[in-house]
Amino acid sequence: MKSIKAVSYPVHFQEKGYEELSNLISNKNYSTLFILADENTFECCYPKFIPNLKTDIRIEVIEIESGEINKNLETCAGVWNAITELGGDRKSLVITLGGGVITDLGGFVASCYKRGIDFVNIPTTLLSMVDASVGGKTGVDLGVLKNQIGLFANPEMVIVDTNYLETVTEREIKSGTAEIIKYGITYDSKLFYEIKNNKGLDIKDLIFRSIEIKNEVVLQDPKEQNLRKILNFGHTLGHAIESFYLESEDKENLTHGEAIAIGMVCESYISEKLLGFPTEKVLEVKDVVLSIYDKIDLLKEDFSAILELLKHDKKNVNGQVNFVLLNDFEDYKIDCKVPVDLIIESMEFYNN
Amino acid sequence: MKSIKAVSYPVHFQEKGYEELSNLISNKNYSTLFILADENTFECCYPKFIPNLKTDIRIEVIEIESGEINKNLETCAGVWNAITELGGDRKSLVITLGGGVITDLGGFVASCYKRGIDFVNIPTTLLSMVDASVGGKTGVDLGVLKNQIGLFANPEMVIVDTNYLETVTEREIKSGTAEIIKYGITYDSKLFYEIKNNKGLDIKDLIFRSIEIKNEVVLQDPKEQNLRKILNFGHTLGHAIESFYLESEDKENLTHGEAIAIGMVCESYISEKLLGFPTEKVLEVKDVVLSIYDKIDLLKEDFSAILELLKHDKKNVNGQVNFVLLNDFEDYKIDCKVPVDLIIESMEFYNN
Repeated sequence: MKSIKAVSYPVHFQEKGYEELSNLISNKNYSTLFILADENTFECCYPKFIPNLKTDIRIEVIEIESGEINKNLETCAGVWNAITELGGDRKSLVITLGGGVITDLGGFVASCYKRGIDFVNIPTTLLSMVDASVGGKTGVDLGVLKNQIGLFANPEMVIVDTNYLETVTEREIKSGTAEIIKYGITYDSKLFYEIKNNKGLDIKDLIFRSIEIKNEVVLQDPKEQNLRKILNFGHTLGHAIESFYLESEDKENLTHGEAIAIGMVCESYISEKLLGFPTEKVLEVKDVVLSIYDKIDLLKEDFSAILELLKHDKKNVNGQVNFVLLNDFEDYKIDCKVPVDLIIESMEFYNN
Repeated sequence: MKSIKAVSYPVHFQEKGYEELSNLISNKNYSTLFILADENTFECCYPKFIPNLKTDIRIEVIEIESGEINKNLETCAGVWNAITELGGDRKSLVITLGGGVITDLGGFVASCYKRGIDFVNIPTTLLSMVDASVGGKTGVDLGVLKNQIGLFANPEMVIVDTNYLETVTEREIKSGTAEIIKYGITYDSKLFYEIKNNKGLDIKDLIFRSIEIKNEVVLQDPKEQNLRKILNFGHTLGHAIESFYLESEDKENLTHGEAIAIGMVCESYISEKLLGFPTEKVLEVKDVVLSIYDKIDLLKEDFSAILELLKHDKKNVNGQVNFVLLNDFEDYKIDCKVPVDLIIESMEFYNN
């Protein structure tokens, strides 16, 4: 599978990635490799990864606790202290080996350590392969607010190796699928209908196509001034719902994909009411989502807390929540204001 | 006084700065201004600043505790939470009003908030005017290790208004003077001899010349690959000494300038021994330093702790401490390795 040249770094697939990583390491003359993993990826992915790494350079593994709840500044401080204690310097390379928490946090940690050291992302979940791997967004959460602290910073390269997907659960695969559906809805309706009709799709092809799309979008608008905002479709309400479940101690957390899937159903409905997005397509989006994900009951009494969390969306200006909505598949409108009543109605539409 | 065009932003002097700030605010259509100050600058500088600010936009003041000890990630988290609670968004502007702690920390906070919002620096101490105001370095300390976490990030503009110097102590003025001496030694020996001969120098001229020099250096080497390392003269050992006094609970902290002044004496001595830097110039450097700063007794029993702290210098690679040393005034050599015995000898030279 050929490599994709992203904004200012390449995405390499399968074994080609490790060859290129070895080249990078010898060309750049790094002093130490710091591999950032969590307890799961250290157990399951590290043994797959390490035989591919041909180098004599010192390797140190830094393990953090898995889970979105640990994607925060305290974890960053722990990693920074660990790198410091292990003798990190400006010629150190950070290799992230994990899902979106690891790649987002690791990229941020590397970009701020001694004003910036190199990093390479090796996503091990479907979600991080199709979403976190391209685009240069790094960051951590502030309390329950997702990715409030972070940077645009590019890795030296990304390695996508689908062998790591053998290590993740069905639920995690589904979480990544939501982003692929999003690429279909917003940028490539053919892809959407392929998923809807589910004709023996090869996961490698879906990943390649998703990265191609994200890359096309990001190349045109790296700093998210306009077109890139389509990648937020489903995420405005989706992030608020995800944060709400994260902060609710009596509720099981949703995966990112589960929350975003609900967000896409709601925002399709809002698009219909405000922009005339076709009714039959709203229903198709809902059908596809419910064919993949278990139905969640959004409780009426929780609506106000979810609406409150919307106020912290990064796209907001002057306290106004800005949605990206759809005129049709592949046809978007940014910076849409949505009446609160309609947001509530959209969650009821999802529920019913 | 004319403005200086820095790497990618202007430095404006005196009242011209406020005119340009008002223009910036109306051109960029900011949603909110967050003014970051400490308890001292809020009391003494804010009343001087606010009458100059012509705008109807909402202004929020965020006050942090003064002092190097608070230049850390906990303070950043507090400011990020405050901005969030006060409804900050991507169109917010952070204005830093203070010394190097405020401008370094505030620039870092702004650059990481929602992946980056604009900031303007208004340095209020001599040190921050001649050092922190130009060059795009932002950051905070990790434990006692100075500026370990940070970024290269440019403010929209810097305003240098010497009226703020009325608010600072004699000791703080002296702290800034060390950096001006450094510019003289490393880049403009005429400036060094003017300070040495102390002929009624105008502080405004010294500031202007210092910023001009720093800007010339940074323009040629923004990411500190080579020439910019001259700005670290005196700082390798100076930072270690500063950190040592910061972590020693039974010793009074040194100002940055006091520590760097000692560092410059020691590193001049090392330059003499390793590179043949002229002996009479070593003595001139020591004379100038001791004519301005009280002598500090570096205790023999503290040497090993200071040497230990050297290991975390940001210029180090592979555990090797890299000094920038002098062949002569205005003639430097980067990446010099120095035997431990010679470092100790240099501290003894300072002591005697």
